[in-house]
Amino acid sequence: MTTCREIRLRERPTGAPTLETFELVETPLPTPGDGEVLCRTLWLSLDPYMRGRISAAKGYTRGVEPGEPMVGECVGEIVESRHPKFEPGEFVVGGGGWRSCFALPGTALRKIDPKAAPISTALGILGMPGFTAWVGTMEMAKPKAGETVVLGAATGAVGAVAGQLAKLEGAHVVGIAGGPEKCRWAIDELGFDICLDRREPDLETKLAAACPNGIDVYIELVGGAVTDAVLPLLNTHARIPVIGGIAHYNAEELPPGPDRTPLLMRQILVKRLKLEGMIITDHGARRPFFEARVGALLQSGRLHYKQDVVDGLENAPEAFIGLLEGKNFGKLLVKVAD
Amino acid sequence: MTTCREIRLRERPTGAPTLETFELVETPLPTPGDGEVLCRTLWLSLDPYMRGRISAAKGYTRGVEPGEPMVGECVGEIVESRHPKFEPGEFVVGGGGWRSCFALPGTALRKIDPKAAPISTALGILGMPGFTAWVGTMEMAKPKAGETVVLGAATGAVGAVAGQLAKLEGAHVVGIAGGPEKCRWAIDELGFDICLDRREPDLETKLAAACPNGIDVYIELVGGAVTDAVLPLLNTHARIPVIGGIAHYNAEELPPGPDRTPLLMRQILVKRLKLEGMIITDHGARRPFFEARVGALLQSGRLHYKQDVVDGLENAPEAFIGLLEGKNFGKLLVKVAD
Repeated sequence: MTTCREIRLRERPTGAPTLETFELVETPLPTPGDGEVLCRTLWLSLDPYMRGRISAAKGYTRGVEPGEPMVGECVGEIVESRHPKFEPGEFVVGGGGWRSCFALPGTALRKIDPKAAPISTALGILGMPGFTAWVGTMEMAKPKAGETVVLGAATGAVGAVAGQLAKLEGAHVVGIAGGPEKCRWAIDELGFDICLDRREPDLETKLAAACPNGIDVYIELVGGAVTDAVLPLLNTHARIPVIGGIAHYNAEELPPGPDRTPLLMRQILVKRLKLEGMIITDHGARRPFFEARVGALLQSGRLHYKQDVVDGLENAPEAFIGLLEGKNFGKLLVKVAD
Repeated sequence: MTTCREIRLRERPTGAPTLETFELVETPLPTPGDGEVLCRTLWLSLDPYMRGRISAAKGYTRGVEPGEPMVGECVGEIVESRHPKFEPGEFVVGGGGWRSCFALPGTALRKIDPKAAPISTALGILGMPGFTAWVGTMEMAKPKAGETVVLGAATGAVGAVAGQLAKLEGAHVVGIAGGPEKCRWAIDELGFDICLDRREPDLETKLAAACPNGIDVYIELVGGAVTDAVLPLLNTHARIPVIGGIAHYNAEELPPGPDRTPLLMRQILVKRLKLEGMIITDHGARRPFFEARVGALLQSGRLHYKQDVVDGLENAPEAFIGLLEGKNFGKLLVKVAD
């Protein structure tokens, strides 16, 4: 390894990103400074939140400026270490970005035990998406046995874990996903009670039939038509962790009127709904607990996952564009090197 | 007292209620059954939530059907008691409705000590509105010293108490009210730091200037333009108890587009906002605590209140219509008898 490849934001997208949004650049191999670790990237995680980082609108953290490399979590193998706690050959996870190699301070990396689980799971069920699902489901929504839990993007990296956790609590879990293949997998593999295809007509009617006792928990990951179908079915004291809204990420304009904000506020009041936004970086203190619990459930075979693997860093832009359209099936990962 | 007068819903209003919405009817004096208590009404409370009860839309509790008497809390003097715990001459508060007399089970009444505070306060600062303010402010929003708390309807029965409680916690309290007289009173009497007149232009700019450190707590009582001005100023982790939305109560249609729901959901996510609806009847268990705390603050002169008194049951409809337009100044009460 003598050079590094990275994908940069070429220009901010208007609406959906295109291949023109990004550019692949060859750069010199970085030299790790004191306390830093140089890694070659094995896996890059692609996640919907990245759309927010390349948007001009102010988000919850600094965005990516045109000309800068795309941000993202990676699993890497250590090539050179100037940090006493890390050795070459070890596997780590960290915010390396859309790059074939990265140098980061040792303090920004977590070691992965390749014997505990496949290293790529550190970007999925045992990584940020799994942790997001854990906090949203187990620490915010807290579904009880017999309650009804609904989630969109049900086979995505967060939804699949959230739904399984709710199922383990004894909830009636209704997923909504894009297409019959995803729905079949959600029922057969993840154990959801019902999964509805959002592309089929009459989602509202079908959802009402799937939730005869109303909805107690809605894990908000998508927005749009799914949320519209959920809102009228919410029970008194329903909990709605607001974790994402992928249906709107590429939108340049708000939907046409009327303005339904007063309707939502009235529902919140009348039904005593609880909506709370969540960004996973606020919850670092709970990470060891999550890792222990979900790690054990995974090892005992009580949790399942699916990875959608794209080969080669150069294919990350196309895969990311597809992610925002729901084309992936399972946790989307780029295999950057063997 | 040989007959009783009551005000009934004549027909559901379309938009704002009018005098035609109601009718005054003379009825025979009710005979209290076993365990019941007959009272003559001294005070009737008029509150914004009553608009929801006469609306065709489904609310959180059974509404008033045309031909039925209007619901409402009353302070009464006991005339006849068939309940062992109540004696004629005692004062009670209960849901007597818009009536000059009422018979209710003793279990549905609370006794009032006329020496502790004026009996009419059992409908205001020591009653449902004060309790609503207590739960919303002290148990849900929990403002800390130095935080900024904003509320609309700032001199109303709930807002005036909520703002004073936040002030006692050491918060920077910014009220929004209708007209200069109300604003002056909020600052001079209630001790709010700032009060803005919602009828003046440039509310958004003025609110931004009044909240240099952003907004940590917004007690939602009004909706509409006030909420629009608040949303962009909310800080990360801001808390928003949703208690009312008086700006929309008379609306027959949603406001014109675009549909800003996705914008609100995005703000909830990005800023990790917490919105939670509250209906005071869910919180009965906390009532003794509220009464002890607020009763003591009132007696020590650390809380202030204002009553807007209308004379005569027959004037309740006009007063209620005015309440929905913000015409009252302080807690609106009907003096039904001496």
